[in-house]
Amino acid sequence: MKIAIQGNAGSFHSIAAKTLYGDEALLVYCETFKKAFEALAGNRADRAIVALENSLYGSLNDTYDLLLKHNFHIVGEVYEQVRFYLWGIEGSSLTTITDVYSQAPALGECEQFLEEKLPQAAVHEYYDTAAAAEFIKQINSKTKAAISSKPAGELNGLSCLASGIETHSDNYTRFIALSKTPNDTATATKTSLTFRTADTPGSLYAALGAFAKQNINLTKLESRPIIGEAWQYMYYVDFAAGIESDETQHALKELRQYAREIRVLGSYSAGSHIVA
Amino acid sequence: MKIAIQGNAGSFHSIAAKTLYGDEALLVYCETFKKAFEALAGNRADRAIVALENSLYGSLNDTYDLLLKHNFHIVGEVYEQVRFYLWGIEGSSLTTITDVYSQAPALGECEQFLEEKLPQAAVHEYYDTAAAAEFIKQINSKTKAAISSKPAGELNGLSCLASGIETHSDNYTRFIALSKTPNDTATATKTSLTFRTADTPGSLYAALGAFAKQNINLTKLESRPIIGEAWQYMYYVDFAAGIESDETQHALKELRQYAREIRVLGSYSAGSHIVA
Repeated sequence: MKIAIQGNAGSFHSIAAKTLYGDEALLVYCETFKKAFEALAGNRADRAIVALENSLYGSLNDTYDLLLKHNFHIVGEVYEQVRFYLWGIEGSSLTTITDVYSQAPALGECEQFLEEKLPQAAVHEYYDTAAAAEFIKQINSKTKAAISSKPAGELNGLSCLASGIETHSDNYTRFIALSKTPNDTATATKTSLTFRTADTPGSLYAALGAFAKQNINLTKLESRPIIGEAWQYMYYVDFAAGIESDETQHALKELRQYAREIRVLGSYSAGSHIVA
Repeated sequence: MKIAIQGNAGSFHSIAAKTLYGDEALLVYCETFKKAFEALAGNRADRAIVALENSLYGSLNDTYDLLLKHNFHIVGEVYEQVRFYLWGIEGSSLTTITDVYSQAPALGECEQFLEEKLPQAAVHEYYDTAAAAEFIKQINSKTKAAISSKPAGELNGLSCLASGIETHSDNYTRFIALSKTPNDTATATKTSLTFRTADTPGSLYAALGAFAKQNINLTKLESRPIIGEAWQYMYYVDFAAGIESDETQHALKELRQYAREIRVLGSYSAGSHIVA
């Protein structure tokens, strides 16, 4: 099984891939989310794993837009706790560091630590947390450090200068697994779909009524702009029921009266929270 | 009147500020959205103007989170068409350019142009479109170019190498004006508020029913994560009615039965679309 992910060895995506598909999965490292989707589209991978939302940051717009652009099936999900570590080369310490490298969201989430413990350090954006750790290993300077996951630091033989440096411990990322071929949805417990409504009073209310009347819990509602139609929105919902269940089938039947362009993105087993 | 904005002279925020408050407004340039909010909080400005959403990109998460953190009033809005230009120094042309600088969303929106017309050029992120134009003027090299607004290029005396280089012409940004003091809402036609619901089936449906029953059109519904409560969401809605209208007062009365932590962010005149 070849799995396309954003990021390098030891990245948070690589941890999610191993949780879902085991250590034997062969990872295809991609610089961007777009390239991970393209690896699946071009058959260079059997699955792609991409972050969809984070409990602090919210939805990742890029992933939502790529989901609408491609016609893949969401076949699984996993929630992973995000813990950040500061890594330097051997002999470095908090007092020797003048430059810190990481991906923008990681830098943002560790801002408090950086301001308090490394006020002297300049902060630099890097395209991936794990790649930032590789960079620190390569330049081999006691003045440089990276913020990344535990595996990323360990894989590169770096020294841990600080751990758990995120501001909020309640920091989870939800990753979804994508496939070109549909999965068996008989035992699915969660479904994701998109639809749009008319731009009239009560149209979204009527659409959501289809789920409320079946007592289906919406776990997420997200709006995304429709390209080429300024200020018109596509809605993206996740709900706690499999696509084959009676309640979902009833809800979809009613939803068709109030919404159009309904597209089921996938039905899969609701993921549990993996605590680091 | 002093207006804090993100970006420098000629930035898209500066155009929005002049549309709303005229040419005589004194602009307080801030590097980030956060700093623009802080300028208003610290009385270094009378108003702050910040982008809230874009018709292609969607909502700007940072602005939504800063709105919740601060206790300002939304007192106005304006929609501005986004048109991008490529600027170089005199004597440069598409064939001499090896490096292009701009803010990430601008680079993304001009990706097609860059791939087709400047395949040889390396692309570099810069913190602001107008600051990127200033940078090109400073380094004074025929190999460097910036993507920015028309005023930003003109203010820096640069040559226009290409205009209208955005992929989608239907590209508008919605800006809101913020104030520490409330405005007169008697003639307001639009209102923004946030609320949260219980994590039970039908709770959001019941909350939206408060608006549907009054025939109030929701123009936007956005969900944002609640920090410290993973996978619980705060809802942000805009609707086409002033806060003092009977229908809004009836809707709020019903909303209080199904939602909590209701906070009115502002009630103001719905903005029109300014075409560049």
